[in-house]
Amino acid sequence: MKLLQDRILAEGRVEEGGILKVDSFLNHQIDVDLYNKIGYEFYKKFKDRGITKILTIEASGIGIACITAQYFKVPVVFAKKTESKNLDKETYESEVYSFTKDRNYKIRVSKRYINNQDKILIIDDFLANGKAVMGLSDIINQADAKLIGVGIVIEKGFQDGGKLLRNKGLDVYSLAVIKSMDNGTVEFE
Amino acid sequence: MKLLQDRILAEGRVEEGGILKVDSFLNHQIDVDLYNKIGYEFYKKFKDRGITKILTIEASGIGIACITAQYFKVPVVFAKKTESKNLDKETYESEVYSFTKDRNYKIRVSKRYINNQDKILIIDDFLANGKAVMGLSDIINQADAKLIGVGIVIEKGFQDGGKLLRNKGLDVYSLAVIKSMDNGTVEFE
Repeated sequence: MKLLQDRILAEGRVEEGGILKVDSFLNHQIDVDLYNKIGYEFYKKFKDRGITKILTIEASGIGIACITAQYFKVPVVFAKKTESKNLDKETYESEVYSFTKDRNYKIRVSKRYINNQDKILIIDDFLANGKAVMGLSDIINQADAKLIGVGIVIEKGFQDGGKLLRNKGLDVYSLAVIKSMDNGTVEFE
Repeated sequence: MKLLQDRILAEGRVEEGGILKVDSFLNHQIDVDLYNKIGYEFYKKFKDRGITKILTIEASGIGIACITAQYFKVPVVFAKKTESKNLDKETYESEVYSFTKDRNYKIRVSKRYINNQDKILIIDDFLANGKAVMGLSDIINQADAKLIGVGIVIEKGFQDGGKLLRNKGLDVYSLAVIKSMDNGTVEFE
């Protein structure tokens, strides 16, 4: 997606530890017009696949998932990361390692909101080591639902998540795949 | 907002400890069509007030803020609750007590994304004790930006947050105000 690549080149900042900061438009401040164009790209790719639900993970995935869901006209469900009195006791759970937060955490989805009739599109902002998508995929399996595809805004192609997921047969569609960020310069595949 | 009230009556579940669960459409599973109608109500109320940015707090506020921002054609900024390598070192910070999680936490917004030219609309899903809005308002003050109004989906009118904020002169606009939830029955003001 050329528009997204241009935006990453113009505003992305490469920082120590393999961090690409795109928080001026993607995951802290949000350019909702860009989100709409991103959502439409996901829609074009997956519109004929009978998607019944979009699944994402809090927090940065929620906005993209909601905007994308407008095209599909389906509900969004977001996996929760934290214990909360608001969450049902009956949940599907999985464990995820976060690279940016350097720790493991549990993700949970209430059993009420995914079932064995669902055909699910996972949406997330970043794909690096693939742990978040693996956790969501695990939850989808527990619910006997079907994982149709994975829509990612930015994939770090130099990390192994994309390869790992595609080798498992998942249909991963990334709008920008970064080949390298050496010397602070972003290059796309 | 009649549609929202009807939905709360039909699907909301009152649980122990003053918890109203509306996670079938508002803050776990998301009905994006309803979000659109909610966003349009906020737009009708605040459209002539020169809003430049919508500010919310992760996680449940993000989706509503993004959908609402489509009407205003302004960016969303969401305050982050957790430490992250992805966040700038230069941030505005405030402290918030969460009733549903029963603990204090810090919220942070990068100094890059709010400035003294901004006229800000705060959006959130719930208003109970008002602590989240107070924290966001504190951050807006630190940035010398202007807080124009506060759009809330569900206000617990029997808690003191709404009164507290309105007494401070804030323009708080809640789409459904709950008067009581005694014996598990929701009544609106």
